[in-house]
Amino acid sequence: MTAPIDFHFDFSSPYGYFASERIDALAARYARQVRWRPHLLGVVFKATGAAPLPSIPLKGAYALRDMVRTAAFLGIPYRHPDPFPVSAVIPARAFYWLEGRDAGRAKALAHALFRAYFVHGSDISRLETVLSLCTGLGMDPVEARAGIEERETRERTRREVEQALAKGVFGSPYIVVDGEPFWGSDRMDQIERWLATGGW
Amino acid sequence: MTAPIDFHFDFSSPYGYFASERIDALAARYARQVRWRPHLLGVVFKATGAAPLPSIPLKGAYALRDMVRTAAFLGIPYRHPDPFPVSAVIPARAFYWLEGRDAGRAKALAHALFRAYFVHGSDISRLETVLSLCTGLGMDPVEARAGIEERETRERTRREVEQALAKGVFGSPYIVVDGEPFWGSDRMDQIERWLATGGW
Repeated sequence: MTAPIDFHFDFSSPYGYFASERIDALAARYARQVRWRPHLLGVVFKATGAAPLPSIPLKGAYALRDMVRTAAFLGIPYRHPDPFPVSAVIPARAFYWLEGRDAGRAKALAHALFRAYFVHGSDISRLETVLSLCTGLGMDPVEARAGIEERETRERTRREVEQALAKGVFGSPYIVVDGEPFWGSDRMDQIERWLATGGW
Repeated sequence: MTAPIDFHFDFSSPYGYFASERIDALAARYARQVRWRPHLLGVVFKATGAAPLPSIPLKGAYALRDMVRTAAFLGIPYRHPDPFPVSAVIPARAFYWLEGRDAGRAKALAHALFRAYFVHGSDISRLETVLSLCTGLGMDPVEARAGIEERETRERTRREVEQALAKGVFGSPYIVVDGEPFWGSDRMDQIERWLATGGW
């Protein structure tokens, strides 16, 4: 089986960030590739009536605690950002624009976006922040800005999000291995065994 | 630290069942006791506006798949019950009644209730089912019925559920170790490290 693993995530999701730090190495141990698919949980919430974690009674307060604790448990640098969550529309557009030109560099930008938000507290919902990260990766910010804002990029992003929603991607991370969906950064152990055994 | 670990769960929760099969052995490795606290998610949902998993768009269908897969991953016998979920009021009353007389036997009844529902498909919301399990553990069913139905048992159960809700117990399993809450059967690895290190 050589189909890539689909890694759906929202750039504003701590659990998506945790998975982003582990998924490629995990897949590589089984000679598998990973397709990174930025998603927009705001669109999911509108479709399903769900809500961002911090706004949910009891669960919201717990989740904030769990995010910090889980990062420490996994040994992943984390500082809970404020504001949280933020819109991931511009980061998603930047990713899909860049992916069409250089998929490897798009993944590098995705890592930079996650770390900018969850380690350095930069507001990645702002175009200026995203452009500055593009510059850091050696891109021309004028070209990047044009690419992020062009109609084709916006439509590609909308299409990707709609396709993910149609596949049932309701959360972040949501990882699909040979048709089997795994939701949550706490399913990496199940994903590993699935890759090792081809299911059970 | 010798305070017991609080293990909150709903008898109708698959993830509560998974935790119930592992929590005592885990605690014993660190010379810790576990207080089992049956909870009623229906009461939580009324208070918080949340809903049972199967009724949630997208997440519900995923969860049914995840429950079966997770049971197999953990090596725990599981047959998804129908109807699902059911009310856990009578099982919770039976537990709290019996706990007041024999805490060890109450835990044995809890195991029997979980397995009756999630392995044998018995409808544990029915008094007859619960009484039959009591009989299987050597109890007099007439006495058990009187105990489950008495006013004191109903009030004790209501008080326990209210106290749990006041502590913020919104899900199942919800396990509290020295004041630190862990939600979900997928937090057993974090609980283990917490017990080993006293936090991080």
